[in-house]
Amino acid sequence: MLHPRSFSHQQAEVMLAAVQMTSSEDWAHNRDTAARLLAEAAGSGAELVALPEFFPLLHRDEQAKFALAEQDGQGPMQDFLAEQAQRLGIWLVGGSVPLKSPFPDRLTNTCLVYGPDGGRVARYDKIHLFGFQRGEERYNEASSFVPGDQPVTFDTPFGRVGLGICYDLRFPELFRQLDSVDLLVLPSAFTVPTGRAHWELLLRARAVENLCYLLAPAQAGEHASGRRTWGHSMLVDPWGEVLACLPEGEGVITGMFSSQRLAELRQQLPALEHRRL
Amino acid sequence: MLHPRSFSHQQAEVMLAAVQMTSSEDWAHNRDTAARLLAEAAGSGAELVALPEFFPLLHRDEQAKFALAEQDGQGPMQDFLAEQAQRLGIWLVGGSVPLKSPFPDRLTNTCLVYGPDGGRVARYDKIHLFGFQRGEERYNEASSFVPGDQPVTFDTPFGRVGLGICYDLRFPELFRQLDSVDLLVLPSAFTVPTGRAHWELLLRARAVENLCYLLAPAQAGEHASGRRTWGHSMLVDPWGEVLACLPEGEGVITGMFSSQRLAELRQQLPALEHRRL
Repeated sequence: MLHPRSFSHQQAEVMLAAVQMTSSEDWAHNRDTAARLLAEAAGSGAELVALPEFFPLLHRDEQAKFALAEQDGQGPMQDFLAEQAQRLGIWLVGGSVPLKSPFPDRLTNTCLVYGPDGGRVARYDKIHLFGFQRGEERYNEASSFVPGDQPVTFDTPFGRVGLGICYDLRFPELFRQLDSVDLLVLPSAFTVPTGRAHWELLLRARAVENLCYLLAPAQAGEHASGRRTWGHSMLVDPWGEVLACLPEGEGVITGMFSSQRLAELRQQLPALEHRRL
Repeated sequence: MLHPRSFSHQQAEVMLAAVQMTSSEDWAHNRDTAARLLAEAAGSGAELVALPEFFPLLHRDEQAKFALAEQDGQGPMQDFLAEQAQRLGIWLVGGSVPLKSPFPDRLTNTCLVYGPDGGRVARYDKIHLFGFQRGEERYNEASSFVPGDQPVTFDTPFGRVGLGICYDLRFPELFRQLDSVDLLVLPSAFTVPTGRAHWELLLRARAVENLCYLLAPAQAGEHASGRRTWGHSMLVDPWGEVLACLPEGEGVITGMFSSQRLAELRQQLPALEHRRL
């Protein structure tokens, strides 16, 4: 492990990182890019690092994801994530990968999380599948994917982490069903028009209303398939301030999670205790 | 009625207005200010007009509200609102007024709504009571008020309207429990530090995630009691664009509600149909 942990829960200052990628249609290439950027993040001192949605493959043609999809528990994408987490000694939120579902014509859009020992600690299947049409921008994720139905959290020494994927961001009730999370992680691949209009707005709102940190790794730029994504990977603090943002290109953002700031803000504004519905 | 209604539901273009006030401790003065600004709004062509939270009286000392509080259904504040709605021929969202509750030491923070015939069409009691402390800014609404527990909507010829009051804005689940609203109205009196940090952000987020218009009349500026409020009364469209905003001072903002734009945006991004939790 590169980064021995010696913090107490009360005083934790932990560096978080999000990896931004412009994934192509080539799994091996994307894997090597992810490995390089994960090493850069861990080398900076990050103890929790998150990859973007579908980091192994971003393609307009959803059929390409069927060829890559793995059974739960075995396959090169899952081996890669477990190995990286263990080798770098990090909590790794593995963006998302396509997994096989019980339905032969449908996959799941799945976020897998690994601990610093390489053991898997969480699986979250995207609950809200994206649909959008404006001019030539058309998406209908539900034609190739089956949605999950379970909100998911996992615990770390510095706090509880909740998961969402991309379009889930538009559904505040998902995050309100999570039990007192300190950090939300939202691997994403927003389109350009919806990203320009709503990405930062909704990320900041989710952080503010849930009084938690929010880490959002994103796909960015013009992909080999011709698809374009919004980028702007972001770390937001519980008061809605943007601590780090990478508008374009591949790279890493880092910023500090502070349990002390979290506690102070929640004491000043005890909105989480004021929930009544 | 100043403004005869001849629209169909499908093509409604309706002017909305929010009144911004700097309410003092003097009910008669605040009433006259409200009357003047309501007439200005209706004279501009607004068909639905909303007043800010506690337009009749804004005081640091909550005891002052007890002296003014009315029984539900009778009293000068309620008479004033009904008369204004009828005389101007408007849908009037009457900000909020203090009403007596079953508990002698507690009031309700209540939004009353009147139709163009002067008849009352809705009562909403604020569900989330404000508490905040940072330095000398301290509020504890729960010491003088008893919260409501029922989300409320009312129907107009141009669409369904949902209600919230000020601090309710931080609780997205309230608005998600309303059944397909086209417009949210949120009479408010935000503090300066929380307003600067979160007012516009959360208003826009609520409009975007619920794909509806949002009208937020506010208290603004330095009140006779010494209390200061954030102002920035705002009309936001369902894509999160700010159609009108008044940063400071007393006055009126107006803007158009368009059923056609609402329908177009909901067709492009059918997120309301994608809700799963």
